[in-house]
Amino acid sequence: MKVSVLFSGGKDSSIAAIMLGQFFEVELVTCNFGILPACHLVRSIANELGFPHRFVQLEPEILQDAMRLVVTDGFPNNGIKLIHCHALEHVAISSDVQAIADGTRRDDRVPVLSLSEVLSLESRLNVHYIRPLEGYGRKTINVLVDRYFEIEEKESALMKGAEYEFELREEIKRRYGDTEVQRIFPRHHTHSRVIKTRAEFFESPEFKRAKVRT
Amino acid sequence: MKVSVLFSGGKDSSIAAIMLGQFFEVELVTCNFGILPACHLVRSIANELGFPHRFVQLEPEILQDAMRLVVTDGFPNNGIKLIHCHALEHVAISSDVQAIADGTRRDDRVPVLSLSEVLSLESRLNVHYIRPLEGYGRKTINVLVDRYFEIEEKESALMKGAEYEFELREEIKRRYGDTEVQRIFPRHHTHSRVIKTRAEFFESPEFKRAKVRT
Repeated sequence: MKVSVLFSGGKDSSIAAIMLGQFFEVELVTCNFGILPACHLVRSIANELGFPHRFVQLEPEILQDAMRLVVTDGFPNNGIKLIHCHALEHVAISSDVQAIADGTRRDDRVPVLSLSEVLSLESRLNVHYIRPLEGYGRKTINVLVDRYFEIEEKESALMKGAEYEFELREEIKRRYGDTEVQRIFPRHHTHSRVIKTRAEFFESPEFKRAKVRT
Repeated sequence: MKVSVLFSGGKDSSIAAIMLGQFFEVELVTCNFGILPACHLVRSIANELGFPHRFVQLEPEILQDAMRLVVTDGFPNNGIKLIHCHALEHVAISSDVQAIADGTRRDDRVPVLSLSEVLSLESRLNVHYIRPLEGYGRKTINVLVDRYFEIEEKESALMKGAEYEFELREEIKRRYGDTEVQRIFPRHHTHSRVIKTRAEFFESPEFKRAKVRT
């Protein structure tokens, strides 16, 4: 079974892809709005992981809707979730997609769908929706991250990547200015990005033979 | 990292073990009260999966407490959860255990711990608690089950296995009789058991080389 994994280049979606890759045929899909130059970075991580990768550009109206929600709320959670739901649906309705997945974790608050929303998505769009990290806490995921990746941690404001938050921040900055960004987004919030896989592991014959998919 | 997986011989705990076995050192642990002769069956499935396996006999008072709860409630959920919590704690406090896991799924209602209970267990006992199937729906798990196992499905009343429900039913039957069992447990409730792994898969060199644990 082919699984399309929503992929930001961050450590969670990277670990999710590795897990699923042991059992399913994985493709990585990065959904964004094309307003930040994240393409090269994300593609290079996807290449290191060794899975096929494609970009999907979402409708600009979604970013505008999310921005309005975030500015009204005064916090980013619902806007980020709105984008994530659109991304999941967009990928799920592609003609050859049977299963979608993401890297949301047990301890995540955003952008986590409720069980009812998950079941609705699966039955409306006739897909499998898998969250392979849902049963893993941060401490356990860190064991795997340390094993597989070298990570770069930076304040969100300085980070360039494909998380929805970065384009949301940028759009709010362009429209309303820096003060509004500072009002809405938590200060000193850091994001991590996979800068390198531990090549000695991924290039090992052990890993290359490791897929038990049928 | 070694992970001790609570193992009933059913399809969910078997799939959970296979998933974890790709990334961690897995041992299977079957917790029960020794009042039903499930040992041989469970051990033979564990052998087919190829992981080390041990039995743990829980304190008989736990079964008595669970039985009283079930009889008072008139339904089995809280009693089954009580046994599961004791089993998790019992395994977690073993001297060399760093991580525990079980086969609870996204769509399970029983015996699922709340997020607060999960976090409490992890921090009190200083373990990782992993639920590898938590992000998978029944439909997706069935894809994996069909790939790896031959399954036997029977009414719970006729089933012999290591699920807590079977010993609870037996204890209530001995103490209160069949009528009480019928009052409490859902009629025509079926349970499935792995009767055989698809040997052509598990014996393949592909699978034997497949572990990417380090």
